[in-house]
Amino acid sequence: MTKRTLLALAALALPFPLLAQHDPAAIQQKALGDDTAYGIVEDLTTEIGPRLAGTEREAAARAWAVERLKAMGFSNVRIEPFDMKTWVRGIETAEITGPFTGKMHISALGNSASTGDTGLEAEVVYFRTLADLQAAPAGSLRGKIAFVSHKMTRTQNGASYGQFGGVRRAGPSLAAQKGAAAIVIRSVGTDYHRNPHTGGTNFPEGVTPIPAAAISIPDAENLERMIARAAKKGEAVKMKLVLTPRQIGTTQSGNVIAEVPGSDPNAGMILVGGHLDSWDLGTGAIDDGAGVAISAAAAKLIMDAGTPKRTIRVVWFGAEEVGLFGGIAYAKKHGAAGHALAMESDFGADRIWQVDFKLPDGTDDLKTRIANALAPLGIGRSNQPAGGGPDVGPTVALGVNAIDLQQDGTDYFDLHHTPDDTLDKIDPKKLQQNVAAWATVLSIVANDPADLLPKGKAGD
Amino acid sequence: MTKRTLLALAALALPFPLLAQHDPAAIQQKALGDDTAYGIVEDLTTEIGPRLAGTEREAAARAWAVERLKAMGFSNVRIEPFDMKTWVRGIETAEITGPFTGKMHISALGNSASTGDTGLEAEVVYFRTLADLQAAPAGSLRGKIAFVSHKMTRTQNGASYGQFGGVRRAGPSLAAQKGAAAIVIRSVGTDYHRNPHTGGTNFPEGVTPIPAAAISIPDAENLERMIARAAKKGEAVKMKLVLTPRQIGTTQSGNVIAEVPGSDPNAGMILVGGHLDSWDLGTGAIDDGAGVAISAAAAKLIMDAGTPKRTIRVVWFGAEEVGLFGGIAYAKKHGAAGHALAMESDFGADRIWQVDFKLPDGTDDLKTRIANALAPLGIGRSNQPAGGGPDVGPTVALGVNAIDLQQDGTDYFDLHHTPDDTLDKIDPKKLQQNVAAWATVLSIVANDPADLLPKGKAGD
Ligand SMILES: [Zn+2]
Ligand SMILES: [Zn+2]
Ligand SMILES: [Zn+2]
Ligand SMILES: [Zn+2]
Repeated sequence: MTKRTLLALAALALPFPLLAQHDPAAIQQKALGDDTAYGIVEDLTTEIGPRLAGTEREAAARAWAVERLKAMGFSNVRIEPFDMKTWVRGIETAEITGPFTGKMHISALGNSASTGDTGLEAEVVYFRTLADLQAAPAGSLRGKIAFVSHKMTRTQNGASYGQFGGVRRAGPSLAAQKGAAAIVIRSVGTDYHRNPHTGGTNFPEGVTPIPAAAISIPDAENLERMIARAAKKGEAVKMKLVLTPRQIGTTQSGNVIAEVPGSDPNAGMILVGGHLDSWDLGTGAIDDGAGVAISAAAAKLIMDAGTPKRTIRVVWFGAEEVGLFGGIAYAKKHGAAGHALAMESDFGADRIWQVDFKLPDGTDDLKTRIANALAPLGIGRSNQPAGGGPDVGPTVALGVNAIDLQQDGTDYFDLHHTPDDTLDKIDPKKLQQNVAAWATVLSIVANDPADLLPKGKAGD
Repeated sequence: MTKRTLLALAALALPFPLLAQHDPAAIQQKALGDDTAYGIVEDLTTEIGPRLAGTEREAAARAWAVERLKAMGFSNVRIEPFDMKTWVRGIETAEITGPFTGKMHISALGNSASTGDTGLEAEVVYFRTLADLQAAPAGSLRGKIAFVSHKMTRTQNGASYGQFGGVRRAGPSLAAQKGAAAIVIRSVGTDYHRNPHTGGTNFPEGVTPIPAAAISIPDAENLERMIARAAKKGEAVKMKLVLTPRQIGTTQSGNVIAEVPGSDPNAGMILVGGHLDSWDLGTGAIDDGAGVAISAAAAKLIMDAGTPKRTIRVVWFGAEEVGLFGGIAYAKKHGAAGHALAMESDFGADRIWQVDFKLPDGTDDLKTRIANALAPLGIGRSNQPAGGGPDVGPTVALGVNAIDLQQDGTDYFDLHHTPDDTLDKIDPKKLQQNVAAWATVLSIVANDPADLLPKGKAGD
């Protein structure tokens, strides 16, 4: 009896077909027909919905997550809590009061101050770009509402978010420093729907926060037209803003952790995940229900194929949106030690098109094997180093390896941080392609003999 | 000197190039480079914005329209006022209160009753279709919120609006008759954005109106999932509704009329138009800023080419959305007499793909000339009779001829009656194709020798 026949017979004796253990091609094939990830996003968006960091809804999501990850068969399922300062949304309306009329679709940015219940009415001062706001003389905005526009472009890799996101990140504190009563920005997004794109902003120590909000892109373009027409008549457009968000003090958030224990504790673990919190306008399907679903579904495929050499640790991070609090808390608690690799999914649910590596010297063969295994999924290899993503970023910064499976972001900013981030935006087939890519990489790296443990840097 | 040379010399003597008078091909060509229509929609949506029938905003639109039509050079610009019963929107919120959570994007339907400021909270009873609601036993909905879903499909000619629109038109009165406390419908639309589609509904004499509203399609699908999950546990989903629209009594609306006087009063006039009122959620760009713009821009092209034989009467109808009040008032006041043809644009701003005729016997040659002249624009001839559209419908019903230039409606119900009906949805090139088609038809019919006057029917 040959060894092959023996294996075939052994397979027949099992209650369900045994995959060749950690055969990347077989795992990839199985992933392409697996609906575990879609089920996670569907349940999370339906049963929990929006889950703003630090709120009761995020806590409900954690409780749901613990139950779900246990039911999936993971080990050591637990919550690692941390404290955070929490901001919550209130009423939000904006209305043009002269010389034209009209309601604008608006949402406050995270950390926005309140206008008070009675709101504020003021002249709108237009800035075409953040640079134009920067150039405004100090005090020139006193008592006025700054309106900063821009025209964000689509990019497959999301690079434009870095370029245009500054309007949201830096615009409010800049306007506050110049004395503005409030700031309204054109949403940082690429769609043409009446959906404002929220997102965090920050007021540095010493700068008193002002009301800060985003209007939808159709509203922003209408406001630009109104301002141009009013200016021709020597008039200014006036806006009435009511925004009543508030800081509610310190509350608890946390990271939810689950593991597939490996057979070799000395080989180091693979950290994978996404973030469990979401902005409060949509149901957090693509940001980042998809990410938590992809990472867990891929880890489960490995678990179901048999014990890997390396432990796979799934982390569903808390409080990403409002300041990467979960990722920072994780890195602070765990450090780099024992982490062979970190991977994260936080860029939607569109198809993966590229793989980037940050792996030690001497792993060229490993990289080639991964790239070759991904090629059937339409994924190409890049020459840029992997960064790891926002949540695992603080861990990667400590010297941990990373592999990035880059999702196509062309349409991501149509939905990002809007009410439109809902389940219907996820294509189940594309989600499966994501899980297949992740499971492929995990099946290879989890069993690879290479030494991937982080090395203390010289001088450490 | 030949007659031809004489004409050529005469042309040179004019201050601007004279089109061969009413040469359909030349007018069509000019229309394809003309931005008059886009300018009308841009100004109307920016300077006036939403203009709900019977309100001060619709009155502002009429005042704006008179000024604009005069500035364009039309004659006999005037308002024909009429009275109407007017409904206005109030606050509108919907929240799931058990066993799940979440806010729904909701808008009241025209003629909806109010829940009162404190709202109403009740169990949601799901009906997959209007027929299912119809089958519900009398009294079975007492104290509950009926939720009627459906899945509207896309059709190029808009036929699906007839099939699925009944959920909005008939659902509320049906639910009221069965004792429901309120009704929520899945928006009659084909998009997947968090935009509710409003629109009119009606409660017949003797049926007490109930609160009636539409939720966005992503919300409707989420609600369906919640209901299915709750049902598995033997629970019902509860919803808290706050809707405070109200009837404000009798106010004034009106039709705005402008003319290109023809040289032959006995040849009958051509009635063209769209409706000036809009729903209040968007700025009424595609419904029906585009229609008023297309009809007026086409009439202006004829006017600029020289006096036509037939008068062209442009009517920007009032109060279409809430009950065709403007079209009915027009037909009542003017009757059929003296109308050679009626045409209307009220199906968005996408390209025209088909022409339908309702013309008297003996006009085959005229129809063929029109169809041939439209062919270069990608417009095909149909064998179905023209209907004329909602506003000119009451006039056409009196025996007036009609030509329909059918717009592609595949995407129309993505935007119809939503906040997303804004200027950015209009493609200037497609709008020009519309104007070109309209101007082509007008240039032919306005000068045709055929007898197109309505004949008294036997027995009239
Ligand atoms: Zn994210
Ligand atoms: Zn985000
Ligand atoms: Zn209409
Ligand atoms: Zn309409």
